[in-house]
Amino acid sequence: MSKIDTLDKKISDLLLEDGRMSCSQIAARIGDITERAVRYRIKRLIKNRIIAVRGNVNAVALGFVVCADVFIEVEPARLVDIANTLASYESISYLAYATGDTDISIQVYARNNSDVFDFVTEVIGQIPGVHKTHISYVPNKLKDDQVWPIPTSAITKT
Amino acid sequence: MSKIDTLDKKISDLLLEDGRMSCSQIAARIGDITERAVRYRIKRLIKNRIIAVRGNVNAVALGFVVCADVFIEVEPARLVDIANTLASYESISYLAYATGDTDISIQVYARNNSDVFDFVTEVIGQIPGVHKTHISYVPNKLKDDQVWPIPTSAITKT
Amino acid sequence: MSKIDTLDKKISDLLLEDGRMSCSQIAARIGDITERAVRYRIKRLIKNRIIAVRGNVNAVALGFVVCADVFIEVEPARLVDIANTLASYESISYLAYATGDTDISIQVYARNNSDVFDFVTEVIGQIPGVHKTHISYVPNKLKDDQVWPIPTSAITKT
Amino acid sequence: MSKIDTLDKKISDLLLEDGRMSCSQIAARIGDITERAVRYRIKRLIKNRIIAVRGNVNAVALGFVVCADVFIEVEPARLVDIANTLASYESISYLAYATGDTDISIQVYARNNSDVFDFVTEVIGQIPGVHKTHISYVPNKLKDDQVWPIPTSAITKT
Amino acid sequence: MSKIDTLDKKISDLLLEDGRMSCSQIAARIGDITERAVRYRIKRLIKNRIIAVRGNVNAVALGFVVCADVFIEVEPARLVDIANTLASYESISYLAYATGDTDISIQVYARNNSDVFDFVTEVIGQIPGVHKTHISYVPNKLKDDQVWPIPTSAITKT
Amino acid sequence: MSKIDTLDKKISDLLLEDGRMSCSQIAARIGDITERAVRYRIKRLIKNRIIAVRGNVNAVALGFVVCADVFIEVEPARLVDIANTLASYESISYLAYATGDTDISIQVYARNNSDVFDFVTEVIGQIPGVHKTHISYVPNKLKDDQVWPIPTSAITKT
Amino acid sequence: MSKIDTLDKKISDLLLEDGRMSCSQIAARIGDITERAVRYRIKRLIKNRIIAVRGNVNAVALGFVVCADVFIEVEPARLVDIANTLASYESISYLAYATGDTDISIQVYARNNSDVFDFVTEVIGQIPGVHKTHISYVPNKLKDDQVWPIPTSAITKT
Amino acid sequence: MSKIDTLDKKISDLLLEDGRMSCSQIAARIGDITERAVRYRIKRLIKNRIIAVRGNVNAVALGFVVCADVFIEVEPARLVDIANTLASYESISYLAYATGDTDISIQVYARNNSDVFDFVTEVIGQIPGVHKTHISYVPNKLKDDQVWPIPTSAITKT
Repeated sequence: MSKIDTLDKKISDLLLEDGRMSCSQIAARIGDITERAVRYRIKRLIKNRIIAVRGNVNAVALGFVVCADVFIEVEPARLVDIANTLASYESISYLAYATGDTDISIQVYARNNSDVFDFVTEVIGQIPGVHKTHISYVPNKLKDDQVWPIPTSAITKT
Repeated sequence: MSKIDTLDKKISDLLLEDGRMSCSQIAARIGDITERAVRYRIKRLIKNRIIAVRGNVNAVALGFVVCADVFIEVEPARLVDIANTLASYESISYLAYATGDTDISIQVYARNNSDVFDFVTEVIGQIPGVHKTHISYVPNKLKDDQVWPIPTSAITKT
Repeated sequence: MSKIDTLDKKISDLLLEDGRMSCSQIAARIGDITERAVRYRIKRLIKNRIIAVRGNVNAVALGFVVCADVFIEVEPARLVDIANTLASYESISYLAYATGDTDISIQVYARNNSDVFDFVTEVIGQIPGVHKTHISYVPNKLKDDQVWPIPTSAITKT
Repeated sequence: MSKIDTLDKKISDLLLEDGRMSCSQIAARIGDITERAVRYRIKRLIKNRIIAVRGNVNAVALGFVVCADVFIEVEPARLVDIANTLASYESISYLAYATGDTDISIQVYARNNSDVFDFVTEVIGQIPGVHKTHISYVPNKLKDDQVWPIPTSAITKT
Repeated sequence: MSKIDTLDKKISDLLLEDGRMSCSQIAARIGDITERAVRYRIKRLIKNRIIAVRGNVNAVALGFVVCADVFIEVEPARLVDIANTLASYESISYLAYATGDTDISIQVYARNNSDVFDFVTEVIGQIPGVHKTHISYVPNKLKDDQVWPIPTSAITKT
Repeated sequence: MSKIDTLDKKISDLLLEDGRMSCSQIAARIGDITERAVRYRIKRLIKNRIIAVRGNVNAVALGFVVCADVFIEVEPARLVDIANTLASYESISYLAYATGDTDISIQVYARNNSDVFDFVTEVIGQIPGVHKTHISYVPNKLKDDQVWPIPTSAITKT
Repeated sequence: MSKIDTLDKKISDLLLEDGRMSCSQIAARIGDITERAVRYRIKRLIKNRIIAVRGNVNAVALGFVVCADVFIEVEPARLVDIANTLASYESISYLAYATGDTDISIQVYARNNSDVFDFVTEVIGQIPGVHKTHISYVPNKLKDDQVWPIPTSAITKT
Repeated sequence: MSKIDTLDKKISDLLLEDGRMSCSQIAARIGDITERAVRYRIKRLIKNRIIAVRGNVNAVALGFVVCADVFIEVEPARLVDIANTLASYESISYLAYATGDTDISIQVYARNNSDVFDFVTEVIGQIPGVHKTHISYVPNKLKDDQVWPIPTSAITKT
């Protein structure tokens, strides 16, 4: 776990705004720093896996206007296999194990409610070992992993 | 909702791999396309909000090794206010309304279990109108919004 | 409770097919019965409230393609008032008291998921005494009250 | 999806009142419209599937004074088969897939509680793949699909 | 269903107090009635199955100081068989079908908590088709079927 | 806690069959015992509260053909008061505290489902401190406290 | 069940403080008692199984900083076998049967959340007959069996 | 976090067997170690808080034969206060915060079921902010914190 400082966060925040911003632009926006220092910092942030600059896809703009959580209960002995099978489906954008009433929790994008239902009943429900599925539509996301900035609490005091 | 083709997906996939890849590199990787065409395509993908190139933050590399879902039940009349209050907390990386047994569903990153618990009881639990909180640790994410590629089903047939 | 026979069911079934079918057409379709007898039977079925010929509205054709069940828990002492308040909303097509985990169960039609969510949070959730709402989308109805025929078991043996 | 105007709604509302009302009566009730225009409008409303004039059956008048919701959990892989099997039973007036804790939700009419219970245990419970049934009596319906008028929000502004 | 009057209730209430009270005692307690009329009335109440004079057993006095509700979920297709099997156990004092989350609901008397647990796990849990048992101790009964008097609402107005 | 033997159980079983059976009849049915001994035994069984001979009321014969469990959740601080208030209602034949998801569990008899619902919403639901009620109809009782015999395990070995 | 007095509790409390405190130290701390009496009392307390002096292990100091409750639902017929299998695992510090929604309830210590999850999915979930596991992290224990003193209510009044 | 070796575990296991075993006895049981080394090791284990030798109390031997889990839901804003209030009750042997459906989870010992119920309703239920209590009897503990040995996985490899 590498230490980060206020400057790292400033650079990261600007890249969150626009991941293709040039180092000189970043240097100009921050002020009091050379383009070269910015380049070095970005390289280090990426090498230390603190940030990754990526082309994030926006499901809604693609016409996938419906987002749903699907909670899946499975036969305990087949948990890992089922999770791996699910991971291969393109419409699933999020997949995690869960520790409570559900065993696997996924998020799917679809063009409409029927597509969600068909995917869950015709695809997920047919996977051997799937005992129960529970669909819960997500009406509105206010925050999302794609746009989560480095929290100030992550900055090492000096 | 704009149409996209196979070329758009190829470019988007490469930017998902590395958001700072230059247009010439992308052109070289794809082949049979000019750097200029790549530049134009990226501009259009971004303008149409299909993709956004961003510096995604990696909570684990920052030392926030614990991820938890928190399901929150609230007084119906204060739903929106509470969601907006929650949205301002840095440790919350995901926040959405929910339609089932819970009203608001969030995901938080923390250094350890105690920090999750303290945040939930000392911060969330003190917000007026919060009736119930349920913490569920997320042991392992296999897929994530940050790295979700354009699904092939989004490509318009021609 | 009035007795009905096979002829009553035949007439009722034809009116279910087309409520504006003329008595002579019905007589022709059934055979062995006069138009006058059909007219008399229809009058009696309606007078005894066995059937009511009505113009049933089709929500989907009107563009209300999303149907959702909403389960509502309320303060016990305000149950009747809340039910009456809800009954006045046009988007609610079904409203009944419930005896289990929920207190009132409704069905709403909407143009999309957001409209359902907004209606539930901004309208229902603001009614004093509403403690909890639970939205569950109805992916597909295979049968419906509008098209339910007289069951053969209702025919009095003679 | 066809557009409708205030006049369409007026006609539909009158047909909801009495599906066998003649076009001349409707014209008289509305005023300022010819019988011929009414006839044309009704034809169009029906052709566009906005309304269907039907002989709706009243279970209570037939002696089926008990109405119950039955929530059914099934083996995911047999969902569609079970739904189709259920659809053939005359006592079931409503049948829909569900997306939450239950998989299929039906409504049945019966002469008394015992008939509901016997139907659920001796018929539904014996269908292979049915894991669980939950009966919840419906004490009182305040609103129903049979009598749902065109909502004013469906009228196209001009 | 036979009609009953105030006199029937008075006699029934006295027999609830002491089922072996003689007809002459009852006549004396009520006043204004002959012993013979009392005898006739009791005979009729019993013949019409309104009351049954019985030696009710008191579990607590026998040392069965622990009372527990056990809620049992079963394979739907075996419901009746399992209920009949359970009915034969002496420690079960109450057994009924249920319509909600549970399928069969019983009440057992035992000398201590361990006996309840052993009975449930070693006897009930071993019956094929029993999926789940849920024990809930009954701390205190305030009212009981054994001592339920005829409600005044059962008296026919004259 | 008094000891009982096989003879006590025989007498108790006969009184369960008919609580007004005379001592001489009981002696004759059992054989090998004097009427006087029977009288003495009955007196002792009653004095030790092992049995109580009572006129048990049969709700169904009185026209109360519907039986329902009602599970009631209350404000913890008012539990005892609410239980006592409930105990005074004639239609409640069983009332006990509960230790699980519910706080008070009752059984009511009624002429039909509507009376149950009205009693629960208009009477129970209006008691201050009642948070939630859950009605579950009891389709069929196979065993009942009124007819529970002394279990053979209660007989003291000698 | 042996009687205990205030002196027994005083000795027990001191041994709870330090189980290796010598009898002379205990005598000195209490006053008015000989070392020999202390020795005799301790022997009796241990012989009567009121206390057991033991080296209690502190999981946190060993680096097992995560504590979790795991609620396990099992096939009723295999309950005892599964419990015995579980009892052999070293990471399980608490194991009890349960009477409610769960069948077996355990507490495990682990170095981190992943170890808990891996143990539950790879070990517990693979035991035949385990239907469902539910992990619930224990953020903080305020009281524990290891340090529970004799309650004053256990002291026999003299 | 201090390292421990096989010898530490051997000593700890013997102290778990009998916390008052003398160092010379321990040395003799283990063999190949001096009494002095044992004394030093014990001192270090205790100083590093790996073990604590304590007089553990046995509730059952004291006549507290009933053990119950009580799950408590509270007003989020009063969680800590309520936990602290509860911690002062002698009959509570275990008290921890919980992260799932319940907020505080305790274990109580009592002489009988009534004492548990009275404690929960008359004491816990009266604490302001307590919304709900759920009692679940613990039929049998197979493992317990008091007797948990150092797991072999805690031994540092050398």
